[in-house]
Amino acid sequence: MVELTVALHAVFDTPRDRLIWDVGHQAYPHKILTGRRDRIRTLRQKGGLSGFTKRSESVYDPFGAAHSSTSVSAALGYAAARDLGGEPADGHGIGDCIAVIGDGAISAGQAYEALNNAGHWGGRLFVILNDNEMSIAPPVGAMSAYLSRLYAGAPFQDLKAAAKAAAHLLPPPLREGARRAKDALKHLAIGHGTLFDELGFSYVGPIDGHDMDSLLAVLRTVRARADGPVLIHVLTKKGKGYAPAERARDKGHGVNRFDVVTGEQVKAPSNAPSYTAVFAEALIRAAARDPRIVAVTAAMPDGTGLSKFAERFPGRCFDVGIAEQHAVTFCAAMAAGGLRPFCAIYSTFLQRGYDQVVHDVAIQGLPVRFAIDRAGLVGADGATHAGAFDVAYLSNLPGFTVMAAADEAELARMVATAAAHDAGPIAFRFPRGEGVGVEIDWDAPPLEIGRGRVVREGSGVALLSYGTRLGAALQAAEALAARGIRPTVADARFAKPLDRDLILHLAATHEALLTIEEGAVGGFGSHVAHLLAEEGVFDGGLKFRSLTLPDRFQEQASPAEMHAEAGLDAAGIEARVLTLLGVTAISRRA
Amino acid sequence: MVELTVALHAVFDTPRDRLIWDVGHQAYPHKILTGRRDRIRTLRQKGGLSGFTKRSESVYDPFGAAHSSTSVSAALGYAAARDLGGEPADGHGIGDCIAVIGDGAISAGQAYEALNNAGHWGGRLFVILNDNEMSIAPPVGAMSAYLSRLYAGAPFQDLKAAAKAAAHLLPPPLREGARRAKDALKHLAIGHGTLFDELGFSYVGPIDGHDMDSLLAVLRTVRARADGPVLIHVLTKKGKGYAPAERARDKGHGVNRFDVVTGEQVKAPSNAPSYTAVFAEALIRAAARDPRIVAVTAAMPDGTGLSKFAERFPGRCFDVGIAEQHAVTFCAAMAAGGLRPFCAIYSTFLQRGYDQVVHDVAIQGLPVRFAIDRAGLVGADGATHAGAFDVAYLSNLPGFTVMAAADEAELARMVATAAAHDAGPIAFRFPRGEGVGVEIDWDAPPLEIGRGRVVREGSGVALLSYGTRLGAALQAAEALAARGIRPTVADARFAKPLDRDLILHLAATHEALLTIEEGAVGGFGSHVAHLLAEEGVFDGGLKFRSLTLPDRFQEQASPAEMHAEAGLDAAGIEARVLTLLGVTAISRRA
Repeated sequence: MVELTVALHAVFDTPRDRLIWDVGHQAYPHKILTGRRDRIRTLRQKGGLSGFTKRSESVYDPFGAAHSSTSVSAALGYAAARDLGGEPADGHGIGDCIAVIGDGAISAGQAYEALNNAGHWGGRLFVILNDNEMSIAPPVGAMSAYLSRLYAGAPFQDLKAAAKAAAHLLPPPLREGARRAKDALKHLAIGHGTLFDELGFSYVGPIDGHDMDSLLAVLRTVRARADGPVLIHVLTKKGKGYAPAERARDKGHGVNRFDVVTGEQVKAPSNAPSYTAVFAEALIRAAARDPRIVAVTAAMPDGTGLSKFAERFPGRCFDVGIAEQHAVTFCAAMAAGGLRPFCAIYSTFLQRGYDQVVHDVAIQGLPVRFAIDRAGLVGADGATHAGAFDVAYLSNLPGFTVMAAADEAELARMVATAAAHDAGPIAFRFPRGEGVGVEIDWDAPPLEIGRGRVVREGSGVALLSYGTRLGAALQAAEALAARGIRPTVADARFAKPLDRDLILHLAATHEALLTIEEGAVGGFGSHVAHLLAEEGVFDGGLKFRSLTLPDRFQEQASPAEMHAEAGLDAAGIEARVLTLLGVTAISRRA
Repeated sequence: MVELTVALHAVFDTPRDRLIWDVGHQAYPHKILTGRRDRIRTLRQKGGLSGFTKRSESVYDPFGAAHSSTSVSAALGYAAARDLGGEPADGHGIGDCIAVIGDGAISAGQAYEALNNAGHWGGRLFVILNDNEMSIAPPVGAMSAYLSRLYAGAPFQDLKAAAKAAAHLLPPPLREGARRAKDALKHLAIGHGTLFDELGFSYVGPIDGHDMDSLLAVLRTVRARADGPVLIHVLTKKGKGYAPAERARDKGHGVNRFDVVTGEQVKAPSNAPSYTAVFAEALIRAAARDPRIVAVTAAMPDGTGLSKFAERFPGRCFDVGIAEQHAVTFCAAMAAGGLRPFCAIYSTFLQRGYDQVVHDVAIQGLPVRFAIDRAGLVGADGATHAGAFDVAYLSNLPGFTVMAAADEAELARMVATAAAHDAGPIAFRFPRGEGVGVEIDWDAPPLEIGRGRVVREGSGVALLSYGTRLGAALQAAEALAARGIRPTVADARFAKPLDRDLILHLAATHEALLTIEEGAVGGFGSHVAHLLAEEGVFDGGLKFRSLTLPDRFQEQASPAEMHAEAGLDAAGIEARVLTLLGVTAISRRA
């Protein structure tokens, strides 16, 4: 990626030429070359550079990224704007539009939709396919196999010489030479007749992405001569030239701080297993008892913990590639076919399969189990990866059961609950990171659907938590006790169906009721408010408040900092209680 | 489709073999052949057959449909369930899995994701590509052009003879003959080396879908011999043999009742222009003044009204195919490029682009204008097409402006408002069907963002409507006036940002406040409740209720019947007010 970045900046004229990096993790060399060198060590830290490209960070980032497979759509949008006289607010105009996309990202439907549209449109556009045979996990799917066949056994062409020859063959004027230029380009391509040609692109490649002479020659030639969409297939090696990275190709994504000499990643000592590990372990235990349990991931076997499941049950684990839409419908049909599928997708990525969740799962009432990891704030990945909306977008779907785990023991029970639940779709969310260190009873029975629990008995004010903010609520209760305020603390467990008895009882026996969730408005608190309104509880008055994520996209920081910013840490909850009860307290934070 | 349906049922053994129709509109002959002949005239009516395939309707519909491009995922899910011993609840087991998908539907990313996964998986699966060069609109995109090239100028092969020869060449035992069978199959294919082959499918075709001899021979051969995924490319003519349909190919989708002899569709006399037509007219007027306005549709130029826009401004209208994910990001980049894109997608289909709405539009704060047609209940298309969730899934996105038009004059103003709004993303929703007949002032100025209006002054109870239920609210107010109850009726216009002043004033000056919206819980009413809670309005008591769509998927009926079922017609609103005020009235409905 280093060589490719240098070559792209040597040949194209950014920021007028619009260079759009898919995902954005691979854009660190680009950041260094575009005025961010002095800040590169602030990467992914609070107040520092984003781990992705970001419009607000630099005029050289014309389109932000983070989720994969959007770059071709974005490049095509800029190209269309250029052809229609669009003037970007940055004042640089629009020249060439270049998408840089990996071989993993190209398995997503959106990339195909965009290639299909661009090939039909036929205008000038560049797609650089960065083929390192490795996205986060090894890419899967027929497209990946196809890309390998394109260069299997074939020696790299001497593209440098070919490019020079092509340039010689084609003197100006360019206008008249357009058709011949296109023909010349085809001589460069060794994949003439490829799938990309079929989709309307001129295919050039494959090119050795570490050979600057070839890269520069090819990029200069296509830039001078292209009169339509061109796909340039570049082969690179992830971590090329840095031995620790070359040795551990699957460790190259979202790395922690590491020792540059040894490549050793610095990991904080762990006090408790991660939620992800607990999910995987619970699922493996359930699957050992029930052969109907299968699991699906969309290209995140490690991130979701399913790689462990796959080791144990290789025939019952499906990695469908970056293909969330397909993953959801595929699970729906497996459920219809009598299996018990667990669809393990991060909260933020499940947005990609939302229509399928509604149309194929919810409307048909099929018992797909959604294991929603990275729910809530995620730290260094920032706003693009926050799991903020899942509670809202699932809880209003008829027939859905929607759970959130308060700790890792609850998570294990929710896996068992979901496994046993054949009555319809069911989801459970859990956060990124470590559990709180509680004992896990792996043999605990499934939860009763729609039943929460009181964790701490009190009076006056009730804190009704949904999910892992329970710990902060308990801390807040402890701090409040020192002031003589003794809140009841409850764990709702279910956003749908709500525990009506519990909620109405809390409302009837307390002066004030606060709901707490790590999600946007429209989710748990809104469903509680709807119930209280319908039941006439507000008619006579109730101090009711809903603590949710704030109505803004939160920038990257540590999870603890982000929780504090959101007012969802113990201090924030405590402060809200004091305000609500009219206690004009000296802030404990000061 | 008639011949293809007969052939599929002749060769495959349903319901054990799982025949999955994409979208489902083309499954009417299938319904007739599978026990629903006597009910076919109830199609798309209340209590009658669905216009799509539906699991609850027949064991011969193993997977419901309505939104396009899900069938390959579903067939693959059944195939995986079969291979893992899954037992569907219907007790028929799982034999072969067959997806029937159109050439329009194959432009969607999900279809590609599924083909990519199936080709990699390599198991036995059949995909019938029904290529009639016509989905709702003529298909667009490079894939469509590619399909045409596959058979352009090539005469149909004598596949019948070839199939017989192949069968002769391959005696049992099948197990040993598997490899040779595959080779034999390839002789059938004239498209060897096609894009589908590259994706891991054996490609067979193209076949004349109206030649039963060929169809039966090919289907029997592939059924007997296939040992992996097979794509059978069938050419059909929409409306073949029925002259009125052959003459008007673009009128064949979602037809009204028609005269069988003449083909003339019976249309109810129109009292007012449709919302869709008003949107199109308002957009054309705005675009005539502003060259930055462009419009995007995902394969619905007629349904969204953009075909009229395209006639006037052909270079500024983009039909990207069935590709909502791409459509949204494409718009985001055009906005970044200085244009003013209107993304016209039905509420239900925008679910397909939800992640792109969050990730590419909202997080970047780009001013994409979403024109959301078919918001709310849609009548004959039933639950799968209801626009129930858009208010909820857009209103919790930071920085979004979310509007709903109360009538067609408001819609025209909202188009102007959106056109003028460069500060961030903005959406406006409007329903299927005709406007209410009010005068439209095409030169009305843009609305003030976040400002509603009081439509009828009253006291005691306030009805705060969001969107086109305003008419029913006014009717309810009229009926209540006869009882001495004189509600205030207000039109919120904005779900985000809320008109705080208006809402807090209504709450302060009325005993009861009802919000009314044609959407699921989590939307407008939830945001109002959140505001009222935060402002402490509930502390002292307020009779607050939110009327929303009910928490179930509503079956097809007339829109009026569906509104009544939902309690969102005038009678329903009136009844809720009476109950809320404690008036034990004789029901006006009885």
